[in-house]
Amino acid sequence: MTVNERIEALRQLMAENCLDVYYVPNEDDHLSEEYTADYFKAKSYMSGFSGESGCVIVTKDFAGLWTDGRYFTQAENELAGSQVELMRLRQEGIPNPLDFLVDQTPVHGKLGFDGSVVSARTKNFLQKKLEQKQASIVNDVDLVGQIWNERPKMPEESLFVLDTKYTGVGAKDKIIQARKSMLEAGADVLFLAALEDPCWLLNIRGNDIENTPVTYAFVLMTENEVNYYVNEKKVNVEVRAHLENSGVTIKDYDEIETDLLKLQNKVVLANLDTLNSKLYTALQGNTILDQESPIAYRRAIKNEVEIECTKNAHVKDGVAVFKFIHWLKNEVKKNEVTEVSAQNKLYDLRGEGQDYIEPSFTTISAYQANGAMMHYSATEENHAKLEPKGFLLVDSGGTYKDGTTDITRTIAVGPLTKEEKKYYTLVLKGHLDLMAAHFLKGTTGNNVDILARQPLWKEDIDYQCGTGHGVGHVLAVHEGPHRIGWGFSSLRPPVPFEAGMIVTDEPGVYLPHELGIRIENELLVVNGNKNFYGQFMHFETLTYVPYEVEAIEVSLLTDEELIQLNAYHAQVRAILSPYLKGEELAYLEEVTKELVRS
Amino acid sequence: MTVNERIEALRQLMAENCLDVYYVPNEDDHLSEEYTADYFKAKSYMSGFSGESGCVIVTKDFAGLWTDGRYFTQAENELAGSQVELMRLRQEGIPNPLDFLVDQTPVHGKLGFDGSVVSARTKNFLQKKLEQKQASIVNDVDLVGQIWNERPKMPEESLFVLDTKYTGVGAKDKIIQARKSMLEAGADVLFLAALEDPCWLLNIRGNDIENTPVTYAFVLMTENEVNYYVNEKKVNVEVRAHLENSGVTIKDYDEIETDLLKLQNKVVLANLDTLNSKLYTALQGNTILDQESPIAYRRAIKNEVEIECTKNAHVKDGVAVFKFIHWLKNEVKKNEVTEVSAQNKLYDLRGEGQDYIEPSFTTISAYQANGAMMHYSATEENHAKLEPKGFLLVDSGGTYKDGTTDITRTIAVGPLTKEEKKYYTLVLKGHLDLMAAHFLKGTTGNNVDILARQPLWKEDIDYQCGTGHGVGHVLAVHEGPHRIGWGFSSLRPPVPFEAGMIVTDEPGVYLPHELGIRIENELLVVNGNKNFYGQFMHFETLTYVPYEVEAIEVSLLTDEELIQLNAYHAQVRAILSPYLKGEELAYLEEVTKELVRS
Repeated sequence: MTVNERIEALRQLMAENCLDVYYVPNEDDHLSEEYTADYFKAKSYMSGFSGESGCVIVTKDFAGLWTDGRYFTQAENELAGSQVELMRLRQEGIPNPLDFLVDQTPVHGKLGFDGSVVSARTKNFLQKKLEQKQASIVNDVDLVGQIWNERPKMPEESLFVLDTKYTGVGAKDKIIQARKSMLEAGADVLFLAALEDPCWLLNIRGNDIENTPVTYAFVLMTENEVNYYVNEKKVNVEVRAHLENSGVTIKDYDEIETDLLKLQNKVVLANLDTLNSKLYTALQGNTILDQESPIAYRRAIKNEVEIECTKNAHVKDGVAVFKFIHWLKNEVKKNEVTEVSAQNKLYDLRGEGQDYIEPSFTTISAYQANGAMMHYSATEENHAKLEPKGFLLVDSGGTYKDGTTDITRTIAVGPLTKEEKKYYTLVLKGHLDLMAAHFLKGTTGNNVDILARQPLWKEDIDYQCGTGHGVGHVLAVHEGPHRIGWGFSSLRPPVPFEAGMIVTDEPGVYLPHELGIRIENELLVVNGNKNFYGQFMHFETLTYVPYEVEAIEVSLLTDEELIQLNAYHAQVRAILSPYLKGEELAYLEEVTKELVRS
Repeated sequence: MTVNERIEALRQLMAENCLDVYYVPNEDDHLSEEYTADYFKAKSYMSGFSGESGCVIVTKDFAGLWTDGRYFTQAENELAGSQVELMRLRQEGIPNPLDFLVDQTPVHGKLGFDGSVVSARTKNFLQKKLEQKQASIVNDVDLVGQIWNERPKMPEESLFVLDTKYTGVGAKDKIIQARKSMLEAGADVLFLAALEDPCWLLNIRGNDIENTPVTYAFVLMTENEVNYYVNEKKVNVEVRAHLENSGVTIKDYDEIETDLLKLQNKVVLANLDTLNSKLYTALQGNTILDQESPIAYRRAIKNEVEIECTKNAHVKDGVAVFKFIHWLKNEVKKNEVTEVSAQNKLYDLRGEGQDYIEPSFTTISAYQANGAMMHYSATEENHAKLEPKGFLLVDSGGTYKDGTTDITRTIAVGPLTKEEKKYYTLVLKGHLDLMAAHFLKGTTGNNVDILARQPLWKEDIDYQCGTGHGVGHVLAVHEGPHRIGWGFSSLRPPVPFEAGMIVTDEPGVYLPHELGIRIENELLVVNGNKNFYGQFMHFETLTYVPYEVEAIEVSLLTDEELIQLNAYHAQVRAILSPYLKGEELAYLEEVTKELVRS
């Protein structure tokens, strides 16, 4: 079936079910936002858009895909030829999808969706609005599932135990802490739905989602019990012993709904953002304490072992990325290099690292104009061949047993234009200015974002996405609750930085059909001086790979930025040189030489 | 009675009324926060602290004054010798006053306050918390009023009409707009309690509060009526004719409660932050639409006439302040100058400006260490004599019929130390960096604040207050809803900048018992380019007075900052020189000369 045929088939089913509007979000049944198992990619099935963020809404006479600025160019290309309209999120005149759902549902009308992939928060919001129109929600209809014949199966990949030498704290101790938080919050039951929470709590990792070492599972904790709901096929002997030894009972994944239905008159701590509306319905008869899970906050603040391990992972990762850059610069002069062959080389080099598991996300290897698509993905069928000029943007990362990395370097594969150098340097300025930030405790990513954006905003340029995200520890490469961005939502008020948090610093310039530049390091929040004014904090850099010196227009840097850049390059040299020799070492020394004003 | 005797008298009354805790806020019956009529200064009466912000809480065995960082040093001095403890707001370990009230009220206990000076929002918050302890609120007891024999009377100063040539829009048109907003919001009644709202709506000004041209009045608007509640003694023939001509009915101030009691089953738009809890009680039986008043937002966005008039006021104001600086620098060399004689000279010079009404707030004229008290007030009894060294910090402003000004200059009255120059330059850097900001529509003061703070935070120094506030048009010198600050409160989410808003830019360094430095300009938000990324915006400077060139350490400025500084000084010269001659003109030319690196 073509996308248009799928839309028509859906409309048929909508008519049979008396639905006026049907909503197809991007989430899975744990409300993961970006990375999900293929089973849940209903939005892509209905629209043809393969990007990792967005949703589809279908009415009798309209079908639209909403996605954000990172994906506009990609979505334009992938939607071409179908009836699905691109709705550019946060652009003037474009309603947000939830408001649109409410608006399009007629008085006394019906809105439908699969409640297992819509959060309780979203459902409550929609219900409240629709009640004003005497309209209603049907949330137990998976219409896409009914037309999707070749739908992928739910994954059943094996679990493994992540040793305490990588996690710093054992599962037993984490359970004690979590239970304490649960009781302090006044709850009888703690329900963990976000995929990362059970993994972190139990020091278990899985392989259900490509490039993210999580598994589909829930945890239900009471004062006396910890139940772990997971497909038992995934549980090997070692994992079973570890769980039993930690006092955890294994139950089948599908038992969760039945067990939630058994709860009555309890106070259940659950986050309505990660609790799906089907399970929320099962919890009726209890009081829901709607809070961010205590795990989410705790896993964002890395302990000393996690920090040391992460630093180690970044050294291995830096060596791989540096070797890649050196290879690339030579290879393009001699042989054909494509976006795909380049990313394969990088996969290989990273794979040489000790304790390497997998990429932490699909590498973005984007030549010139392709770099303007923030989440571009080159494929065997569809990719560009590198010419000896301009930029290759490479955003990549690795999951190692000791940590997760995420780095972007935009690499000159030949001569650059004056404009390319100017844009690169503006991005670098913002990147350096944020990296050099000093701030008081209480400061959030909402406060510091402008430091990265100011050099670009002064040129009337913006990158239409956040500046940075948290990074999980051998978990999702994107993790909250903190982030760096300037937009503000009362629903998700900004979370202050704490020492031990990791956050990326990745401003960019994206000129559609022209070029894409992004520079990304990971930063660790550390405490500085504490004095009369409070606790000062700043960032320590975790990522050590040289910037593209051929692209830096030194005259555009302030003295402060130039000193900072040279100090960073000196550190890169000190950290990477023990692992390099011969031509690679010589190249490292060359590109980390002190830059001076001409 | 001494402060201690007043506290004991209050405890006596608390016992008679079976109250465990008594709360004495700083607000008036319109919930004005900083500037109120003397009648309402109960907090000062009970504590001896004369600062403009704070509150007092008394229990059986504790009496405390809460105030913020601007006032710590002043409060330390003024509380010395009394039993009232200084509770430093937002310092580690200091509970906020509302939490403290809840905490100190025992189970089944009673908290008391005068409901006419506590907002409905605050009362609701306290009530909800106290219900959990089965404790209750008594909000109709003005115990301070019972012991305050010599309490000042409510003011009865005359009103005047502010001509449309200064306001741009007539009262009739403003009423039409306001009524439209009321109906669009789905309200039957609009209740305006914030003192500035009725003034702005009706183009009326008053003189009830020192240095703020407002009057104690309410407006109650329905689809057909506009009732203005005001002490009729204030209304002269001209004002009466203007109001009647605008379709406004004058009613006595005290009739408001009776009229609110008459409303039943109406939807009333009122802001619970400015509605006092006594009047809120009178509105029971109606639905309250709790929103920022449509007036508050509209008066923050100045129209073209208001902007032109304001620019004109700033030219007059700049001339006065510049003449003052010139006078001061010469006078300290020849005669004795005190903080008070200096501020009197400035009052005189400002008074020469056309259409001058009064100072827009009490001038802060603070020599050296006194400048560390952000809201220091020199008096005839208590002030410092200037020595021929260091800084005089002068924060002052004027209310003219065409606009309100607010400016701070920190002036060298003799040789400066290296440290003084360094701190001055750090403050100047932050001030200039914020002034030069470019940002997209949607940006708030929460986003840009760090631009002003970064040069100081990098030295582990903070100024413990916001960076900027809105400025009213011939109204309060502090006006919302926008502001510049880094702290975040879900209760008052940050408000995005709009073209036409005015905001101050006033970072500082305050080293207790040592020095105080602040530099303040007013900035106008203006639209820049609109492109693919959205509407860009930046600031246009309204204030034109040279900075202290003797205090600027050029080597600490970036090239960008130096260029910006020189361009500003060139503009100052162009704007002020037509109004100066002789020595003053020569001095202007001298201090606005291009600065160069040595």
